[in-house]
Amino acid sequence: MYPFEGATSFVTRAWYVAGWSDEITEKPIARTILGQSVALFRVSTGEPVALSNRCTHRGLPLAMGTVNGDEIACGYHGFVFGLDGRCRRIPSQERVPPGIAVRQYPVAERWDWVWIWMGDPAFPDYSLLPDTQELGLGGDPWLAVRGDDFHVRARYQLFNENLLDLTHLSFLHADSIGTPDLLESQMTVDVVDRTVRVERCTRSEQMSPFYARRLGIPIGRIDRRHVTSFVAPTFHVVHVIAAKEGTGVGPAPAVLGEHKILHAITPETETTLHDFWALTRTYNTSDEMTAYLRENINGVIRQDIVALEATEAALAGCSDRPLEFSCAADEAALKGRRLIQQLLRAERPPNTEEKRR
Amino acid sequence: MYPFEGATSFVTRAWYVAGWSDEITEKPIARTILGQSVALFRVSTGEPVALSNRCTHRGLPLAMGTVNGDEIACGYHGFVFGLDGRCRRIPSQERVPPGIAVRQYPVAERWDWVWIWMGDPAFPDYSLLPDTQELGLGGDPWLAVRGDDFHVRARYQLFNENLLDLTHLSFLHADSIGTPDLLESQMTVDVVDRTVRVERCTRSEQMSPFYARRLGIPIGRIDRRHVTSFVAPTFHVVHVIAAKEGTGVGPAPAVLGEHKILHAITPETETTLHDFWALTRTYNTSDEMTAYLRENINGVIRQDIVALEATEAALAGCSDRPLEFSCAADEAALKGRRLIQQLLRAERPPNTEEKRR
Amino acid sequence: MYPFEGATSFVTRAWYVAGWSDEITEKPIARTILGQSVALFRVSTGEPVALSNRCTHRGLPLAMGTVNGDEIACGYHGFVFGLDGRCRRIPSQERVPPGIAVRQYPVAERWDWVWIWMGDPAFPDYSLLPDTQELGLGGDPWLAVRGDDFHVRARYQLFNENLLDLTHLSFLHADSIGTPDLLESQMTVDVVDRTVRVERCTRSEQMSPFYARRLGIPIGRIDRRHVTSFVAPTFHVVHVIAAKEGTGVGPAPAVLGEHKILHAITPETETTLHDFWALTRTYNTSDEMTAYLRENINGVIRQDIVALEATEAALAGCSDRPLEFSCAADEAALKGRRLIQQLLRAERPPNTEEKRR
Repeated sequence: MYPFEGATSFVTRAWYVAGWSDEITEKPIARTILGQSVALFRVSTGEPVALSNRCTHRGLPLAMGTVNGDEIACGYHGFVFGLDGRCRRIPSQERVPPGIAVRQYPVAERWDWVWIWMGDPAFPDYSLLPDTQELGLGGDPWLAVRGDDFHVRARYQLFNENLLDLTHLSFLHADSIGTPDLLESQMTVDVVDRTVRVERCTRSEQMSPFYARRLGIPIGRIDRRHVTSFVAPTFHVVHVIAAKEGTGVGPAPAVLGEHKILHAITPETETTLHDFWALTRTYNTSDEMTAYLRENINGVIRQDIVALEATEAALAGCSDRPLEFSCAADEAALKGRRLIQQLLRAERPPNTEEKRR
Repeated sequence: MYPFEGATSFVTRAWYVAGWSDEITEKPIARTILGQSVALFRVSTGEPVALSNRCTHRGLPLAMGTVNGDEIACGYHGFVFGLDGRCRRIPSQERVPPGIAVRQYPVAERWDWVWIWMGDPAFPDYSLLPDTQELGLGGDPWLAVRGDDFHVRARYQLFNENLLDLTHLSFLHADSIGTPDLLESQMTVDVVDRTVRVERCTRSEQMSPFYARRLGIPIGRIDRRHVTSFVAPTFHVVHVIAAKEGTGVGPAPAVLGEHKILHAITPETETTLHDFWALTRTYNTSDEMTAYLRENINGVIRQDIVALEATEAALAGCSDRPLEFSCAADEAALKGRRLIQQLLRAERPPNTEEKRR
Repeated sequence: MYPFEGATSFVTRAWYVAGWSDEITEKPIARTILGQSVALFRVSTGEPVALSNRCTHRGLPLAMGTVNGDEIACGYHGFVFGLDGRCRRIPSQERVPPGIAVRQYPVAERWDWVWIWMGDPAFPDYSLLPDTQELGLGGDPWLAVRGDDFHVRARYQLFNENLLDLTHLSFLHADSIGTPDLLESQMTVDVVDRTVRVERCTRSEQMSPFYARRLGIPIGRIDRRHVTSFVAPTFHVVHVIAAKEGTGVGPAPAVLGEHKILHAITPETETTLHDFWALTRTYNTSDEMTAYLRENINGVIRQDIVALEATEAALAGCSDRPLEFSCAADEAALKGRRLIQQLLRAERPPNTEEKRR
């Protein structure tokens, strides 16, 4: 599946955002993650639970069932399952044969996000959960606000590569956050473990009106540093630091303000995804600025979505793997691909035959 | 195709309801049955006719043609076909070469239903048509009323199994016809030829308000007997007898009222179906009660359809045959599966390779 | 693919109408032709250009880009391509590696149509472009008016065969242009190179009110000659000459009026198409008659589209190649099939395995 080898692009040994905390309540919802339909709900203690959405009796989605205390009853014939997915009761008979169960998925609530582990449920790797403090979601001096949940008809790697090559800002977002100066900036790319780190610094960049309003200063020239940390397979932190002109790349930048945009991308199917985004910042913490940022960033993401969906639609029409040329600015994207490809290979049994698309 | 072996779940050597009598007129309609598009119409004598909907000349649906007397003319180039499907005239030439024909399907009109035989047209087995008298469609003491035609996006066996395991009433229909007492009742299951007969008797069951209103008596306790006769592949008679408390299961029940709900399920494609239902009863024969029953039963069926379509949608998302556990209450459903599987095997040429889904 | 051997029905070594002249401007549009997505636009000199719609960098449709002078810039990361499809600039770097290009398609503007060559771009065969004078698109005594662009969900050969067997006029268009007399007429069919020429002459034919109004004479009897020239794979000229009764088939017909209906059919996918039609005539050149003809011919084509789409939908439901009988009136259609089949074979590498559908 383009751009990866192999039939699937799903990395299962990873945490994905399953939903916003306030989406998951005692009334179950169904969400498809990596092609698997999952029932998400909270039990009476408030603990979030994720079970396979298919009742193992006759297949009705469990999300159509009812939560009572610490168990969920299927809405069809009333089979009752506990938090571990084991069947506890069958209303029409006395005994529950051993072994009847639905798959349970480990979950972890961090900040306003409920994360789900899609690998072997017996071995969730909690060390792979992002550090909330480091993300700027732990409070002062950061003010974190949740963004929206965008449903996008595109394979997740298209979104990854959008975020990993910021030169698109100068074209796709020319009328909002993009400035031509970004194209001139130097880029460095490093890979450490599952992370690709991309840094771009601009000097004496002309501010966009959008950016000046954010910082509450008159339009003029600044230095800026963009640091993108991409944690494979789908988590992005874009850290933007604005500094006074001439100070941004030196040892003691005169910082005007910082923000981090976080994108937690959750593949839904091989060609669709959810994007749960958030923003955290050190400047102007007024509600008015929060509303302004949400509106503007939603607008920017919508421009990306138009491009992503058009690209996906074009891929759907290709019978062959598309011929593709990369340029220097694709360095980070290509390193990201390689990381994911390694994760995919590690998950695949050795002699699996490969399909290419 | 789940839950059957083999690529198809279609039993062709069977009668299916093609439509309500009043749907089939001199203006042809097209209906897909077992994946075959069929043109249905009446000739001038009133006799219903079913022909393959594909004109054998250039493939326009015959249902777009015009009936004249005892023949139908295609709406494209005017080829004329008789009731036996043979081409009688080609307007642009004098002679009709021998052998030009469309497939003809045997039909039989019984009560308000027009039945179609989907097996070899030369050998329709009329002994397999249900006995209208026995169904309670022959008049006094029964009053038969036609229900509706529901189009359902689910494979037919899901509907069969819904009707064969009435324990779902206590959950899916908890707010209408379901009572918890049904779960306690004994079930006996017998198989004779193509029929699975399931009997459940409740004692001292608390009536639902719905049921009390039907019988026109105050809410209280009754005995009830449910006898479901499932005639493979898709015909169901659910016969419900209400008796005074304490008399229902003895030799001389004091019957308060009886009704039969009939479901004639016609597979449209492998994953869609039509349900033509009817009801016949011995109690309160007023038009008001008829209207009340139609409305209420339609409501109950709509609840079933929500469950059936959700289950089908979940199956569509499964790449593998789903893992499934059955319980004691599934006895009738499993015996029904076995009957159908036998019919399917009997139709398949011996060395056919089997696909599983 | 019915009715052809082989998996594809696309003849690539041919010119197709890509669009109306006034559709193609400096604002690019995307159109799918033979399954290939093409970006169509004009450069500042007014010259029309067709490039593959897939940017070879990261796949965004080029039609979402911007035309400047004689080049187009992709809307994603700004790659710039010239008229020959070669990449001229990459904004984020100095050098353009050699060989980066998108496919360019030869185009030719004739009358109000922009034609595109779908074969090898190095060898467009301009001799296959239709002669505008001969089509009646060159002016006096002909008045040419453009028709509409119909999008039809049917494989192109269904439309070809519709136009090649005019006996359908007597049935499908019985209420508009059809008369029963056409069925009686003699037909001659000749094949020369890529062209099937079909001639039908009627004598003492009863005029339809529609036709009388066209010619501006009272309803009565006329002689008529229909000459259809089908140029494989998809271009049709239906030349209709009305003459005074008794003169039409002799050496000196007393011509009452002539018109030509032109259909340029452009396959979009294997099962959808665009029909760009036009009409040119020698009679009543008033705007009122032009409007009347457009409205009426659109109405006739809409009747055809209903039949074509119903036939295509029926084919989609067939798992096997349909059994089909032809009659004498299909002679031209069958000769057309054979021509196209020859063109398809000529394009296929010798040992290609054939799929049949």
